[in-house]
Amino acid sequence: MTDHVYSVSEIYGSSGSSVEEAIDNAIATASESLRNLDWFEVTEIRGHIEDGKVAHYQVGLKIGFRYQR
Amino acid sequence: MTDHVYSVSEIYGSSGSSVEEAIDNAIATASESLRNLDWFEVTEIRGHIEDGKVAHYQVGLKIGFRYQR
Amino acid sequence: MTDHVYSVSEIYGSSGSSVEEAIDNAIATASESLRNLDWFEVTEIRGHIEDGKVAHYQVGLKIGFRYQR
Amino acid sequence: MTDHVYSVSEIYGSSGSSVEEAIDNAIATASESLRNLDWFEVTEIRGHIEDGKVAHYQVGLKIGFRYQR
Amino acid sequence: MTDHVYSVSEIYGSSGSSVEEAIDNAIATASESLRNLDWFEVTEIRGHIEDGKVAHYQVGLKIGFRYQR
Amino acid sequence: MTDHVYSVSEIYGSSGSSVEEAIDNAIATASESLRNLDWFEVTEIRGHIEDGKVAHYQVGLKIGFRYQR
Amino acid sequence: MTDHVYSVSEIYGSSGSSVEEAIDNAIATASESLRNLDWFEVTEIRGHIEDGKVAHYQVGLKIGFRYQR
Amino acid sequence: MTDHVYSVSEIYGSSGSSVEEAIDNAIATASESLRNLDWFEVTEIRGHIEDGKVAHYQVGLKIGFRYQR
Amino acid sequence: MTDHVYSVSEIYGSSGSSVEEAIDNAIATASESLRNLDWFEVTEIRGHIEDGKVAHYQVGLKIGFRYQR
Amino acid sequence: MTDHVYSVSEIYGSSGSSVEEAIDNAIATASESLRNLDWFEVTEIRGHIEDGKVAHYQVGLKIGFRYQR
Amino acid sequence: MTDHVYSVSEIYGSSGSSVEEAIDNAIATASESLRNLDWFEVTEIRGHIEDGKVAHYQVGLKIGFRYQR
Amino acid sequence: MTDHVYSVSEIYGSSGSSVEEAIDNAIATASESLRNLDWFEVTEIRGHIEDGKVAHYQVGLKIGFRYQR
Repeated sequence: MTDHVYSVSEIYGSSGSSVEEAIDNAIATASESLRNLDWFEVTEIRGHIEDGKVAHYQVGLKIGFRYQR
Repeated sequence: MTDHVYSVSEIYGSSGSSVEEAIDNAIATASESLRNLDWFEVTEIRGHIEDGKVAHYQVGLKIGFRYQR
Repeated sequence: MTDHVYSVSEIYGSSGSSVEEAIDNAIATASESLRNLDWFEVTEIRGHIEDGKVAHYQVGLKIGFRYQR
Repeated sequence: MTDHVYSVSEIYGSSGSSVEEAIDNAIATASESLRNLDWFEVTEIRGHIEDGKVAHYQVGLKIGFRYQR
Repeated sequence: MTDHVYSVSEIYGSSGSSVEEAIDNAIATASESLRNLDWFEVTEIRGHIEDGKVAHYQVGLKIGFRYQR
Repeated sequence: MTDHVYSVSEIYGSSGSSVEEAIDNAIATASESLRNLDWFEVTEIRGHIEDGKVAHYQVGLKIGFRYQR
Repeated sequence: MTDHVYSVSEIYGSSGSSVEEAIDNAIATASESLRNLDWFEVTEIRGHIEDGKVAHYQVGLKIGFRYQR
Repeated sequence: MTDHVYSVSEIYGSSGSSVEEAIDNAIATASESLRNLDWFEVTEIRGHIEDGKVAHYQVGLKIGFRYQR
Repeated sequence: MTDHVYSVSEIYGSSGSSVEEAIDNAIATASESLRNLDWFEVTEIRGHIEDGKVAHYQVGLKIGFRYQR
Repeated sequence: MTDHVYSVSEIYGSSGSSVEEAIDNAIATASESLRNLDWFEVTEIRGHIEDGKVAHYQVGLKIGFRYQR
Repeated sequence: MTDHVYSVSEIYGSSGSSVEEAIDNAIATASESLRNLDWFEVTEIRGHIEDGKVAHYQVGLKIGFRYQR
Repeated sequence: MTDHVYSVSEIYGSSGSSVEEAIDNAIATASESLRNLDWFEVTEIRGHIEDGKVAHYQVGLKIGFRYQR
């Protein structure tokens, strides 16, 4: 296990409903083009406001995946 | 669009239920006195504990709004 | 009130469902061995991914409790 | 208590004598125009030097106050 | 001089041309409603891209002004 | 000396009078239950406000002590 | 708009003339291989010195672009 | 696996030889009193100098261990 | 030289022996798919513990390489 | 005034009595060898503990002085 | 090349015109007393305001130079 | 002991072999011109890559030494 190498990709997902759904959307999209996704780390939670309400959450993630030789 | 100026206000909302509701409460209160709210950014998630359970979440936000000349 | 002393413990909780449930799990476990829990502060939100989906959230907390003389 | 909203104002006080007096001066001035001041947090301690001695301390504070609907 | 109190306002200016012009626009707008502006500090330099070119720079500032009793 | 191991405990002390007294109170309380206290580092200076005055300072410390085998 | 996913690429541009031109060079090069560039954020401004003068500025950017399914 | 709770302890190890040996010393000492050690994270690398040479390295660690109910 | 553009990739290498070997493993793997690697910067040193000893070090790197047009 | 250049020196002062006296001691010593001291900024407040009490405070400062051509 | 040692000096330059000119002024002044200047890194961009306009920019730099034995 | 004043110098050492040797080289060079070196703190670990391998490590240090009146 000691020779594993992981690469990290930074990505933002969004959702009109919740922080968790924004994370899900980012990971689902990333998994279409990257394999072996292993972990994530939230870097930022932000969003847009319309008519005095949250229009959507935007969540920044670092996603780690095993390097593909 | 290049001459827009935004002002930023820092605010904490709270909720007994969720991080998202604490954000909603902060923005709803801010929109009573500020117009043209545009974006927010979470600066801190914290809260109080009573009887070994979360009593309420407190979420710090920076809220950006278009400057009112 | 000015002579209160608080101690801080750092802890990670996890949940397959939400950030809030991971916080609840951390606090519930901490309250089994520590008394007088008073506040918490989120230090990190991360998690693991399996099959292109969030397997579980891991949330780091600092938990403050009144010092037990 | 869970629906409290706090606003945060950033302010610098100064004093020729001590860090504590600079904090006092900032809070005394803020309380002339803001009501319901609740907590403060020191963001920076600095100052000016004249003739090889501290001329005055400048202390930056974030001051939280309950939002005034 | 030791009893001066400064308040800090956070603001974003933008410009299609340069970082300096974005700073100027922020300060010019702020000076319409705030008096006694004294110093600024850049907190962030960012911007938008259109057609592979910078559409405009957005510069975040903290602006300090002498407190108005 | 090269085989010393130090453990670090995080603690908040408070005082109605000064930052230094809040540090003293934290260390005095910690020394009731921990031995071999060696150094401290201030992590945060904050406090509460009542009637437009500082009610008490709260000072966060990391306290290092030689590990007790 | 709530289902947008953005990816972030980190890049350094350089210029002998100005910070703005270094940003332009980074974005122009990135736009040759990445589509849908949307925003940038400056992470670092540095450079090299030759003969006591700035030889060139190096500016680090995070560049966000809409994820390409 | 989603209901695991980890606690974090902060500790400094030292060594006259290398960063890695200082980490080993910290973990070996911690494992005498804590069970289920799982991961570590380096927070600081420092040390003392005697006669113009490194006398010993001091390495700060956060050590995570599964919470012991 | 002033028109060079560098891209940055974030990667984690691991080793059972040392921090340096973990760096070597990360760079060796990265050089299989990226050309013109130029510099690296350590972002994090961490690892796993088994049976009270370091099982392996994990070292996070930012790796800069000249942009490939 | 726009062509002033300031140099910054980092220094730690200590005192058995207070944070302010530690700052004074650092500045008094620096002013013996540096001229035109103009401002300071506190970077760290720490200290040593003996017999469960503060033995002395150590305060880190950045000190700015006008560059001496 | 592997035995090069660099020293770092921190310095602030100012200019009434631009960020770049403030950097130039700092480096020009530093090169009067230090030799072998090699690189710089911007640590802070700030300035003073007079009559609602930027009076001058102040830019903080770390300047690296090869150590002079 | 409470009236000690320490000055801090920032320096980068390099080595083709290890992080520790880069630290040694920095301290050995510094001790040629500075006396009373007392402690160091690593601020950065980075390096250059040639032919897909580490050409040399560069380690940034803050070095503290007792002020020389």
